[in-house]
Amino acid sequence: MAPRLSALGRIILMTTLLIAASTTAFAARYPSYGMLTTKTTPAGVMTVVINNTFSSINLFDAHVQSDLANLIEELQANDTDVRVVLFESGNPEFFISHIDVNYFFPGYEDPLPHFDPGLQNMTFPTALLWNITQLPQATIAVIEGRARGIGNEFLMSCDMRFASLSPSVLLAQLETSFGLNPGAGGAMYLSRLIGRGLTFEYVFASKDIDAATAERYGWINRAFLTSAELREYVQQLAARIALFPRGGIIGTKQGINAVSRPSMDVLIRDAQNVIDALAATPAPFALSQNFLKATHNQSLGDLELNYGTELESLFK
Amino acid sequence: MAPRLSALGRIILMTTLLIAASTTAFAARYPSYGMLTTKTTPAGVMTVVINNTFSSINLFDAHVQSDLANLIEELQANDTDVRVVLFESGNPEFFISHIDVNYFFPGYEDPLPHFDPGLQNMTFPTALLWNITQLPQATIAVIEGRARGIGNEFLMSCDMRFASLSPSVLLAQLETSFGLNPGAGGAMYLSRLIGRGLTFEYVFASKDIDAATAERYGWINRAFLTSAELREYVQQLAARIALFPRGGIIGTKQGINAVSRPSMDVLIRDAQNVIDALAATPAPFALSQNFLKATHNQSLGDLELNYGTELESLFK
Amino acid sequence: MAPRLSALGRIILMTTLLIAASTTAFAARYPSYGMLTTKTTPAGVMTVVINNTFSSINLFDAHVQSDLANLIEELQANDTDVRVVLFESGNPEFFISHIDVNYFFPGYEDPLPHFDPGLQNMTFPTALLWNITQLPQATIAVIEGRARGIGNEFLMSCDMRFASLSPSVLLAQLETSFGLNPGAGGAMYLSRLIGRGLTFEYVFASKDIDAATAERYGWINRAFLTSAELREYVQQLAARIALFPRGGIIGTKQGINAVSRPSMDVLIRDAQNVIDALAATPAPFALSQNFLKATHNQSLGDLELNYGTELESLFK
Repeated sequence: MAPRLSALGRIILMTTLLIAASTTAFAARYPSYGMLTTKTTPAGVMTVVINNTFSSINLFDAHVQSDLANLIEELQANDTDVRVVLFESGNPEFFISHIDVNYFFPGYEDPLPHFDPGLQNMTFPTALLWNITQLPQATIAVIEGRARGIGNEFLMSCDMRFASLSPSVLLAQLETSFGLNPGAGGAMYLSRLIGRGLTFEYVFASKDIDAATAERYGWINRAFLTSAELREYVQQLAARIALFPRGGIIGTKQGINAVSRPSMDVLIRDAQNVIDALAATPAPFALSQNFLKATHNQSLGDLELNYGTELESLFK
Repeated sequence: MAPRLSALGRIILMTTLLIAASTTAFAARYPSYGMLTTKTTPAGVMTVVINNTFSSINLFDAHVQSDLANLIEELQANDTDVRVVLFESGNPEFFISHIDVNYFFPGYEDPLPHFDPGLQNMTFPTALLWNITQLPQATIAVIEGRARGIGNEFLMSCDMRFASLSPSVLLAQLETSFGLNPGAGGAMYLSRLIGRGLTFEYVFASKDIDAATAERYGWINRAFLTSAELREYVQQLAARIALFPRGGIIGTKQGINAVSRPSMDVLIRDAQNVIDALAATPAPFALSQNFLKATHNQSLGDLELNYGTELESLFK
Repeated sequence: MAPRLSALGRIILMTTLLIAASTTAFAARYPSYGMLTTKTTPAGVMTVVINNTFSSINLFDAHVQSDLANLIEELQANDTDVRVVLFESGNPEFFISHIDVNYFFPGYEDPLPHFDPGLQNMTFPTALLWNITQLPQATIAVIEGRARGIGNEFLMSCDMRFASLSPSVLLAQLETSFGLNPGAGGAMYLSRLIGRGLTFEYVFASKDIDAATAERYGWINRAFLTSAELREYVQQLAARIALFPRGGIIGTKQGINAVSRPSMDVLIRDAQNVIDALAATPAPFALSQNFLKATHNQSLGDLELNYGTELESLFK
């Protein structure tokens, strides 16, 4: 899902891949791009910093997806060390901006398989998030910066979400504004957090929510005045959970997922396949073209920073 | 579900129907009574004012149901213009009071079919609300005045709910106080908004909730100090959603419904069929008779205005 | 699930049983131990005080379970008098502390059948709580004191929960800290009250929640400044519900359960069978042994009082 690359770009990616691959013992299934930095404490808390160095807005493109897929495979196999995984962003303005819009365009050359090899009928990005909900570790999103669309769906695929009260924290499902729907289940997970009525409002209107309101509604677990307080709270929480045997984490997650996660069938039928069908219609295509033009192919600027208030300019 | 009509009453209704029918190009399936006034902006926002001119309390009787069923059929067929539908009330004290209690009495001559012609095994009023949840438009209830029983179920069949902080806004599921249950799924939708524990409290006790508390619990999306603020917020929200392509609204609604609406089978089996069975038992019949007597067949008065605090008088 | 009893202990239990049995006309299926005191008003409100006189911490052991099972059978059969059941504790520090940890040990001689005779594949304590959710009465927990593990699951099997703001009110699902999961569905019910994200936090971390926070999140319906206010509110609520015909309570509960209770299959597969499998692994066994030693077999002391803050001592 990377933007189409020049020949030079491809060579750089390949080189990056080779370097990244040489630094880990884990046999990565997908190309590695160095988008993720990981650090694990002796107590079993892994911190993952997401930093898409090919993008000024931490785009959820094929580079990030590829690296995340490898990490998830590693965590699935990990059977002793890691008990808790913290996801952070290396970009102060964006946790994850959104999916690479080019993904929906005819002719896009996807470096990743369209369907996940392991999960039948699930597209690669949808499967990636689904797999996060299945990890044998507790997962926590540490939010500083914006997360819209699949960025917010990523947050909700984590077990817990904490944020700072920074004005940079703005969360949204913005798909309806493109004539699409949250295809990886964003509106489904959201309805388990903030209820049916508020879900309709925020998703239909593609509205940004700030950290304070997100806490009040239950979209995130809690918001903290400063980044330091956020990090202290999350570290203590993670350290505590990491004390406990692995079996309890896995077993407890099985029970919570059984009642508060959309079933795989429903997720595929009523979210993923719906967005795939809508993406093939004219309106989303035209709006996405406008968006790419207005953002200079998803570059840092007012529209990416303040989509919630600026989006109406796309309709003028 | 109208009160039984005199011969004159029937003639008036028929006349009303003919006049109403002549003002619209849409071929109405059911009799039209002029209970609804609609206005659509060029931007695609339709406002529907519900005003039962046969009732001082905006009763959800056969007149209102008939007109709503026609409107819904029109909106289902509408495939271009309307993106958002706002439902308001023309009665300052009542959004919709409740169902016409006569509906449950043996011998009631229903001018509408008992079962909906389009939805197998669903009674007419239950199907009407179900169809609202299926509309290809975003639906918003703009609440000033009371809504109890099926009135509140109507609110919850809309995607979103906003209210003023007027003391006239009182919402309730009051069926348990009659020995019945919310037959169109009121307790089911409510549990998606305010959680299982509060749902039991409000439904079992047939308690009124005011707008401020309703906002705090998530029963409504938001409450506004003045009617003007309410209307300004809703107009802006509606105008924004109306910018977006129709497909995104439909697709997003499909996903949210898939996880946060009761399935049709459950709604029929565990709500509708339960109330039908209970309505045939002696206790609800006796209480309904008391209620009709005490309210002079559902006329404006203290019991209709303040049912939440006055209902105990029915048990003395 | 009693601790293993001496011969004298067994004789005392039998005597207790005979005395208790002689004071009620109801033919109890299980041994009766006098752990419950019941009082029913003429208006149909029964108050049940739980007081495990064999335990300083109101342990949910075989005595309490046996008496509760008899009470539930009586309430299931009751078809006229009782409309509302209030559950209280006779122990000011503990509503119900937690399950008797000995229950999970190999060699534990269970005086109760492992599986419930009436509910296929459901263990006795899980079935007991399930049956509470099925009672034809409205059920209300009046919380003063701690309730952790199955104690909190007991609270959530009641329809409604109210508490005082006393510092003695501390609620938790603590199973993950033992390498287990909430086996009677605690995490499932909780996710219907406080949402998916907060459920993960509180259950994974085995955190205590106080009454004020529990009210804010929806874990309990409401918290009251004083015990007197709590009792006045609950008495008025119960008296009101008791006015209404029995059918409405039963019918309304059927509808709410249909959408907000885990299905029996899911509860057995993803909660009960998971804890049974985990309990057979080494880590929970070792931690439970530590716990029994540190608490002098579940006696009143700092670890039982303040498990939420003191549990980390078990991992040193």
